[in-house]
Order: sequence, then structure tokens, then C-alpha cells
Amino acid sequence: MIARKYQHIAHYIENGVEAIRRTGIRVLALQDRYVKLLMPLAGNTNHIGIMYAGSLFALGEVTGGAIFAVAFDTEHYVPIVKEVTIRYRRPALTDITLESAIPADRVAAVETDLREKGKADFPLTVELKDAGGEVVSLVQGVWQARKMPEGLVNPLAKP
Amino acid sequence: MIARKYQHIAHYIENGVEAIRRTGIRVLALQDRYVKLLMPLAGNTNHIGIMYAGSLFALGEVTGGAIFAVAFDTEHYVPIVKEVTIRYRRPALTDITLESAIPADRVAAVETDLREKGKADFPLTVELKDAGGEVVSLVQGVWQARKMPEGLVNPLAKP
Repeated sequence: MIARKYQHIAHYIENGVEAIRRTGIRVLALQDRYVKLLMPLAGNTNHIGIMYAGSLFALGEVTGGAIFAVAFDTEHYVPIVKEVTIRYRRPALTDITLESAIPADRVAAVETDLREKGKADFPLTVELKDAGGEVVSLVQGVWQARKMPEGLVNPLAKP
Repeated sequence: MIARKYQHIAHYIENGVEAIRRTGIRVLALQDRYVKLLMPLAGNTNHIGIMYAGSLFALGEVTGGAIFAVAFDTEHYVPIVKEVTIRYRRPALTDITLESAIPADRVAAVETDLREKGKADFPLTVELKDAGGEVVSLVQGVWQARKMPEGLVNPLAKP
């Protein structure tokens, strides 16, 4: 379920960045510090009929921004990605979903860093699963929350 | 320059996989064991106006398939990707290019593995550069060449 207060975030994740919108990614759930996302197989198959590696990557990578938006202060900070590793374990033959959550105490620690240094890293590890619950890919990334640059309005902030 | 014998490969890289075609990627050069590719900034910007992380990833990831096509036997083998790490060093504010090459002796070693085991890994490290020559991202990946599955015709094979 998408919490009412996060409807604008869901809309932004699905439509805000043109290259992500093109994948047809769908937000299945947004709650405080929790996201569930889906990448459709349709429109994302590769040269051998399985999900294209880059679409699986997009699903994993967008998680950093999505978790940021339901865990941190989107009016004063913005997320960037520093590094991502994706391991392809099995062919992805169905729509693919992922769930990710960040604990409240971890958010508090990152926020302390943010207030003191103006930026703070937050690593995430996420499993991408097929319709049968098998892990097809594993994504490990490091994102960073940063003070909003002067003159920029965070598109993830409330409208 | 795109060698005449690789024109169909260039066309396939730019158009063959729908999700890659959507990025507007362009093949600048294909020679034996050498590729040069470009990802346009237009159509690939993110929430803060720089190139979207996933489009940079796509540029790096497609390199494995592109190198495969100009180095290995595309009639009997097919490339898959096993693992990719991308590090984002600087904001990408222009079109981004990369060059990649694989030495002939490395190709020969992979081909020996392929004949003996029916599959063989080939790692690549590529630098993604902006219009000023600065490295904006670094991609390290492991791809694998495999025997063509029964009944599949490699779309990278000559028409």
C-alpha cells in the first residue's frame, strides 16, 4: 500500500526521471522507511528474451532514492548514488519485485551525520525476486544524502 | 570508424534491445576487438539535471556485448553479464563516451576456455568520460561467453 502522504513520491518515482519512466517501473508500496517496487518484463527483455541487465539495475538503483524519500527530510536534502554492484544470479523471466527497508535507528544516525557534515552515506543491499520468489539479482549500493544545492527545489519534496 | 563488416552489429547495439534503444546510445566506432560508444545527455538527465545513473550503467554494461561481438565467434556463442560495479566519481554534465579494447591474446585464451568448457568469463574495466576527458564513472564487470542455447539464433551473428 502506498501511504497517502507518499502518493506524490510514487508518482515521481514512476514518472519524474524520463529514463526511469521509460522502463515502466511501478511502485507497489511506500510506507515510512519501506518501499516495494516492480519492474515489468514487458518492454524490458534483452537479446535472449530475459530481462535486460540495465532494467534490473534501474530497479535496484532507484531504491536508494525511494528509501531516501520515505525516510529522510526531502525539503533540505537530496540523494545521490556513489557506487552500485549488481550480481546476476538467475535469468529474470517474469516481472521482478524488490522490497527494501531502513531501520529508524539507522535513519537517526544518518541524520546526525547530515546535520554535522552536510552529507552522509547510506548503504543498502536489496534482493530482486521473480514471481516465484527466487532471487534473480543482488544489488549492493552506497547512496549519499546531501544538503540541497542553492537554488534547487527537491522534486521529492511535498508539492 | 565502424568497420563495414560490423555495420550490422552497430545497428543491433543501437536498436536491438528495446530498453537500450530508448537511451539513444550511439556506436561511434567498431573495429576488431575495439569499441567506442556514446550516451547522449539529452533524454538521460535525472532529478538534478545530470546524467541518470542507470544510463551511465547502460553505457558501461553494453560494452561487454559490444566487445564480444567484435572479438568472438557470434555464430556459436552468446554473451551474458554476471556482475557489474559502477562507481560515480563526478557529475556527468555532457554526452559521455567510452572506449574499450580486448587484446588478441586475451581473446585466444577465452576461446580456448570456450572450446573446452562451453563457457568462459571475460572481465572488462572501462572509464566513462565527459566531453572534457574527465572520468565521470568507472565500470568493472564480468561477462561470460556461452555456447548458443539450442534453437536460438544469436542476433549478433551476421545476417
